[in-house]
Amino acid sequence: MTGTGASSALPAGLPMAVPQEGLPERVRIHEVGARDGLQNEKATVPTKIKAEFVHRLADAGLSTIEATSFVHPGWVPQLADADELMPMLSGLAGRDPEVRLPVLVPNVRGLGRALDLGVREVAVFASATESFARANLNRTVDEALAMSEPVVTRAKEAGVRVRGYLSMCFGDPWEGPVPIAQVAAVARRLYAMGCDELSLGDTIGVATPGHVTALLDALTGGRTPDGADATPVPVEHLAVHFHDTYGQALANTLAALRCGVTVVDASAGGLGGCPYAKSATGNLATEDLVWMLHGLGVRTGVDLDRLSATSVWMAEQLGRPSPSRTVRALTHQEQ
Amino acid sequence: MTGTGASSALPAGLPMAVPQEGLPERVRIHEVGARDGLQNEKATVPTKIKAEFVHRLADAGLSTIEATSFVHPGWVPQLADADELMPMLSGLAGRDPEVRLPVLVPNVRGLGRALDLGVREVAVFASATESFARANLNRTVDEALAMSEPVVTRAKEAGVRVRGYLSMCFGDPWEGPVPIAQVAAVARRLYAMGCDELSLGDTIGVATPGHVTALLDALTGGRTPDGADATPVPVEHLAVHFHDTYGQALANTLAALRCGVTVVDASAGGLGGCPYAKSATGNLATEDLVWMLHGLGVRTGVDLDRLSATSVWMAEQLGRPSPSRTVRALTHQEQ
Repeated sequence: MTGTGASSALPAGLPMAVPQEGLPERVRIHEVGARDGLQNEKATVPTKIKAEFVHRLADAGLSTIEATSFVHPGWVPQLADADELMPMLSGLAGRDPEVRLPVLVPNVRGLGRALDLGVREVAVFASATESFARANLNRTVDEALAMSEPVVTRAKEAGVRVRGYLSMCFGDPWEGPVPIAQVAAVARRLYAMGCDELSLGDTIGVATPGHVTALLDALTGGRTPDGADATPVPVEHLAVHFHDTYGQALANTLAALRCGVTVVDASAGGLGGCPYAKSATGNLATEDLVWMLHGLGVRTGVDLDRLSATSVWMAEQLGRPSPSRTVRALTHQEQ
Repeated sequence: MTGTGASSALPAGLPMAVPQEGLPERVRIHEVGARDGLQNEKATVPTKIKAEFVHRLADAGLSTIEATSFVHPGWVPQLADADELMPMLSGLAGRDPEVRLPVLVPNVRGLGRALDLGVREVAVFASATESFARANLNRTVDEALAMSEPVVTRAKEAGVRVRGYLSMCFGDPWEGPVPIAQVAAVARRLYAMGCDELSLGDTIGVATPGHVTALLDALTGGRTPDGADATPVPVEHLAVHFHDTYGQALANTLAALRCGVTVVDASAGGLGGCPYAKSATGNLATEDLVWMLHGLGVRTGVDLDRLSATSVWMAEQLGRPSPSRTVRALTHQEQ
């Protein structure tokens, strides 16, 4: 937990905070770097490095840090150490302000492992498209929802918060554009199961701001895009998860904030596969998000210098530079 | 002018066009790659490559392409071939729809060279801060404006359109945040000289959307931020020039579009110094801009595949990959 050697070049007084009407006063960042970011890394990251990463993220002021995944170790070898990692994070649970450490659980078995370790918050996942449900889960959309349902039910019985991830909410690599009515229908079902929060994912990064607004309006309104009655999903239960594959993530975030969304997923340093390689997931970098939010006068609780130094430290562990533009600009990182 | 070998991976039907209220139907992109993009390149780009670049940009549907600069050759060696380049572009002038080929001119001498070559549109430049006026022009802000004034006057007399670039409109590396009143005052003076269009530059890329809205409101309103009377600058005479140094350029563009701006500067492939190096200028990549605009249902006239292929071709000439996220995603460009 020592210094990183990275020197910050944050210009004094920048970004200048100029609030804009219609935006929330505070945003909670759901930090996914330790789970979503690391899960695609080929080289195994030592468990103690992961633990240090999560501690550093908490020290930088992040209040919700998705820590790992309780999937079968064969699926995601990088996260096979979840049982060893969680006890190393136990010191964070009692912090003030609270540090939330959700974990991904694919099924009831994974939930059981997580509950045994005292986890207080879990996440399940589903797909808005049949193609991705098949490719990622080898199931239909209905089968994937059916797999999540008992997880949500049992987690709620145990008094544990549940987040539902919904993938491919805007475009799908096989199906192209995804109809808003289709996404809204799956999202409503996931919410109706009892999820406390839905994270709407632009998994391939193709969304643009009007599309974001239209989907959020469809979900929070009392009608489907087809005009039929529907149960609204209150905006305080919605989060957005944008990928920066086409550079659109921050503009999309701005559109979501205007719709009242106050929970935004991001990955420290843009971790999540190199955005320049075919395997890119291209997560929105937390630093780029924080720059915008602080410029808008929106509070996040994050210390940008400290976070940026953490991302540089993690990039050193992984042996390649952070793709975050803000990290590179603040640390004069060359490639 | 042959194929580039770059294969496009544009997912069919993406981005899905979903218009958003309050945005313009059409945006004119002021393409700066050939001038602003190339001027910082150390290795000399052959004149015939520059000419091919401009022709390819026009073929991709860009209607305003800043071609070069008539500065003293000692200042910007890369653009010392302006007199040779312009005649190679003469075939573009008569195209339907029109292709506009503005050039930068620092002084009356440069204007004379440009007029002799039949140039129909020029640009002058000024700084909103004393520090940058001193560093870039070795002048005060007032002296820089005084140098531009006769250029604007003579250009207008010759029936030539004039654009005024204003640098450091949001932050300055020496001065930090730049007061909106100060920027508005210099911008009004530049406009009052007779500029047909002002391009408001975020030269170090630190702006955020609320700041953009506040500056545009200050300029287009009839009062200064201090409450004094002021001459409004009509929004149809304003353009925005964002840098992506901190990843904010598209979110800022969205804010500007909401204010009624319909002219946006961008650089094909994000040309303009490697954004990961200290010398970065970090121009907004035209492809990233076009992706957002087309997703918003805003017409640009640009063929994104063709433009992206052009940027890959230019990147090959320069020997390094394009920093545009959209170019990389569309062409599966590895680094």
